[in-house]
Amino acid sequence: MKIVFTFRPPRALQAQLKEIFSEDKFVYYKSVEEAEDLREAEVIVTFGEDLTTQHIENCPNLKWIMVASAGLERMPAEIIKERGILVTNARGIHKIPMAEFTMGYMLNHVKRFPEFLDLQKEKTWNHQMAVGELAGKCLLVLGSGAIGTEIARLARAFRMETVGVNRSGHKNDQFDEMHTMDKLLEILPKADFVVSILPSTEETKYLLDREHFQVMKETAAFINIGRGDLFKEEVLIDALNNNEISHAYLDVFIEEPLLEDHPFWNQQKLTITPHISSVTSEYLPRVQQIFVHNMNVYKKDGSNYENKIDMDKGY
Amino acid sequence: MKIVFTFRPPRALQAQLKEIFSEDKFVYYKSVEEAEDLREAEVIVTFGEDLTTQHIENCPNLKWIMVASAGLERMPAEIIKERGILVTNARGIHKIPMAEFTMGYMLNHVKRFPEFLDLQKEKTWNHQMAVGELAGKCLLVLGSGAIGTEIARLARAFRMETVGVNRSGHKNDQFDEMHTMDKLLEILPKADFVVSILPSTEETKYLLDREHFQVMKETAAFINIGRGDLFKEEVLIDALNNNEISHAYLDVFIEEPLLEDHPFWNQQKLTITPHISSVTSEYLPRVQQIFVHNMNVYKKDGSNYENKIDMDKGY
Repeated sequence: MKIVFTFRPPRALQAQLKEIFSEDKFVYYKSVEEAEDLREAEVIVTFGEDLTTQHIENCPNLKWIMVASAGLERMPAEIIKERGILVTNARGIHKIPMAEFTMGYMLNHVKRFPEFLDLQKEKTWNHQMAVGELAGKCLLVLGSGAIGTEIARLARAFRMETVGVNRSGHKNDQFDEMHTMDKLLEILPKADFVVSILPSTEETKYLLDREHFQVMKETAAFINIGRGDLFKEEVLIDALNNNEISHAYLDVFIEEPLLEDHPFWNQQKLTITPHISSVTSEYLPRVQQIFVHNMNVYKKDGSNYENKIDMDKGY
Repeated sequence: MKIVFTFRPPRALQAQLKEIFSEDKFVYYKSVEEAEDLREAEVIVTFGEDLTTQHIENCPNLKWIMVASAGLERMPAEIIKERGILVTNARGIHKIPMAEFTMGYMLNHVKRFPEFLDLQKEKTWNHQMAVGELAGKCLLVLGSGAIGTEIARLARAFRMETVGVNRSGHKNDQFDEMHTMDKLLEILPKADFVVSILPSTEETKYLLDREHFQVMKETAAFINIGRGDLFKEEVLIDALNNNEISHAYLDVFIEEPLLEDHPFWNQQKLTITPHISSVTSEYLPRVQQIFVHNMNVYKKDGSNYENKIDMDKGY
């Protein structure tokens, strides 16, 4: 059978597929536009942002779309459902890099690594710096799905207290406490770290307002790796200027890339990263692991696909 | 009874002792020289670097010395043994801050946080940076005592492979593999991170030579939180200049503080911290926890002291 990729994985990964599935034909293109034999595809592997209804219509043999990301919003859902095409994705692939990113900045914060870097540049030996630690600190995670749970698991290994907030308030083994969203103002005052992995929805848009930052500890650090519209930007700037929290680490923004004249760049107590918390060199190898598993299922009996999507539900 | 401190803990800790042991008399001095009523002490609490034979001779009632650190080298051992004075210390107190420090720099390394800091200063949004992760990487720990074991425990939570080296090669639950020192050259080539917590002894002095760095991965990062004389400084400088390893993180040095004209300061691929891996705001609270436990044992039946020292063995 013919498998068409609308992106080019590294050669080592291509070689691995050729070796495992030697009887199949894999072709790789830089983009869907260049995929001249797309119409012959039985399987399409895509990042999920390039396929149109027209593409699907032109592929009479298409039976399976493997989406090499977690996002499915731009997929032409109607024709996929009509045709009964199998869709799988790479859900869950972000939890390891995002949790490592979060622990990394939490450690940076208590250990004051950027300040030691400045001291090194000045050739200054200062053994008197007050250095903190994570053990015993309280971590509040907004959004307790796969990513939030992985962060809590690591935080517990660091002997932290873990508190979670989600829609249902349903318990989760990696959290000492779990609360519903409406309890947020009551829980925020005890957190040393507040981490948001919340997606952008009607409920979460501008969820954090002035009062939320005002009740946080002055020593608290806030980390946003979910979506930029969790708060209005001026709300955070004021919270930092008023010393309501000690530092914010932002990886996501209302408008990305962040414009060169954006006030965030120069903000004291604000660390900016360019939406890279989920970036990892292990991304494509991990996608391929899922793909190889599902290829074997597809060739066998179609049972036990990993990350099979119900296109009616969208997940 | 009278307890004399030759240092001043924060007031909150003093208040706690007063509350728990209300019938006892605690006095606090900045140094042993200022401790005018030292001779009345039944218990002395010290960092262990100030007491002389003369001091002990002048304290007829002295029964117990609590050393608020791990080091006992400067204690007047002979008279302590002669008089049968109980000695306890704060052994094990360094493992949490030192393991957090190590994980912090390992995350800094794979996540390239210092480079993102530079990008922020330039107001540059670069989403194309290749970011790695700890999961799946191999950590080699030289010295698998309490600190090395705590590092391995955390590394495992990060899904790393853990390999240890110690004198005996005795197994340890937190390490996937454990080897004796003489196997070092065989193990080094597979490590992505090499962390040393080795103390300075005849066996470890200049243990790492040119050949050791030469067999390490070019991408490996080396972290030294043990003692500075693990290698000759020029050996490391050459290894970095020859790209034999990718980065070194040094918290300890042959001569401390590092002199202002030391070549390390300007070295590319070298991160310097001023011997602070064990520093933590939780240090004295944790010493006090041990002390309170042992005070209760002392008052009761003398059984089950935490960190009781055998002065013959020195630990």
